[in-house]
Amino acid sequence: MAKQNIYDNPIFFDGYKKLREKEKNANNIFEKPALFSLLPNLSGKRVLDLGCGFGEHCMYYIAQGADAVVGIDISEKMLQAAREENNHPNITYINMPMEDISQIDDKFDVAVSSLAFHYVEDFANVVKNIYEKLNDNGVLLFSQENPLCTCHSGGDRWTRDENGEKKYLNLADYGVEGERESVWFVDNVKKYHRTFSTIINTLIDTGFVIEKMIEPLPTKEILRNMPEFKDLYHKPDFLLVKVRK
Amino acid sequence: MAKQNIYDNPIFFDGYKKLREKEKNANNIFEKPALFSLLPNLSGKRVLDLGCGFGEHCMYYIAQGADAVVGIDISEKMLQAAREENNHPNITYINMPMEDISQIDDKFDVAVSSLAFHYVEDFANVVKNIYEKLNDNGVLLFSQENPLCTCHSGGDRWTRDENGEKKYLNLADYGVEGERESVWFVDNVKKYHRTFSTIINTLIDTGFVIEKMIEPLPTKEILRNMPEFKDLYHKPDFLLVKVRK
Repeated sequence: MAKQNIYDNPIFFDGYKKLREKEKNANNIFEKPALFSLLPNLSGKRVLDLGCGFGEHCMYYIAQGADAVVGIDISEKMLQAAREENNHPNITYINMPMEDISQIDDKFDVAVSSLAFHYVEDFANVVKNIYEKLNDNGVLLFSQENPLCTCHSGGDRWTRDENGEKKYLNLADYGVEGERESVWFVDNVKKYHRTFSTIINTLIDTGFVIEKMIEPLPTKEILRNMPEFKDLYHKPDFLLVKVRK
Repeated sequence: MAKQNIYDNPIFFDGYKKLREKEKNANNIFEKPALFSLLPNLSGKRVLDLGCGFGEHCMYYIAQGADAVVGIDISEKMLQAAREENNHPNITYINMPMEDISQIDDKFDVAVSSLAFHYVEDFANVVKNIYEKLNDNGVLLFSQENPLCTCHSGGDRWTRDENGEKKYLNLADYGVEGERESVWFVDNVKKYHRTFSTIINTLIDTGFVIEKMIEPLPTKEILRNMPEFKDLYHKPDFLLVKVRK
């Protein structure tokens, strides 16, 4: 099975890096706080970060008391930046697709993945491998694009009113799972759509117990300062899930 | 809190009864098989049917070996039909809103609710009361309108192409939970929208363990015989959930 590595594409890499450097991006305001809110106490824990990118989260887990963090990413270009910008003696960066984690010798107390699972074709297999890498009572938490986003398969995403405001999300093919091609800095970024029920059932069938789901929405305060995020009430961008072995 | 009883409205009642008598309705083809597929072995079990309507499901649970079935419904008119058409010495029909089940003395092994929870305003309270009425290891399973349906708050539900085919579901306000008014045989049928994550988190916070979610879709065989159901691939009509105490 092809393991997609768009992040080593230089055009994608530059576009993505600039986006992540913007303070007011949706990741920083909605996804990251929600993800971190689900973290258990990391003191003395061993953490695996799947799709660690530039390694900022790995550093955060160390700051939260983690004993050791292993960050894996399919993109060597991302890991080069991680090794320069977020270097720490207790962090190990490994260039590896997350489909291959059974090759890692260690076991972990916590596995975290931020916005990477929607690139994975065989979700059941990745979840099974994570389950096997976790110690008993271990926690997996992840964020991904919301299924209301991943189902999109071309055409206009929104219907707008006469003032250009977003009125409706043009939702189609929610029940059609599988590959979607999209343009995000570069052509042919492949994502994989799964319904809410498939995501949850896959986790349960693997043996995990569901502890929490989050679809982050703006608070009133966020809306006051950044009204551009009001359309998240039509369609949340993210889905976060916390499960326990 | 007002407990809605549209089913005793004679216009609604007649329209609804005719709909349910059609063999090819979505309930019979998608919702009922999915609900029954989630049933545990009922042999010797005590079953509570919340929103039992005409009592057909109560009779099915008896046929599946249940020792005793209590069917509750807010509509006395529905229960009159149930007592005539689906009468059995081991079925007790009680005219009661599901918000009031703590008044029932018995405990149950299985609680089932078919297409009623989207009428409930205080879902957390109903779930808590069901939890308390279940024996240890007891099962709750329910169907409701899919959150992609319940979020609808007026206007056209679909954008159609030049041939009148459904092209997009006009999705808005998925993140805005709470009351929706709709027209279904009569004006002002009140439903309550909750996101997938709110439904799942409410069950978990009450103490339930999530066992399965289903968003029923047509099989190829169903589509061959009834192509009119292809639009369920844009938006499933139903959500089913099975949880265990």
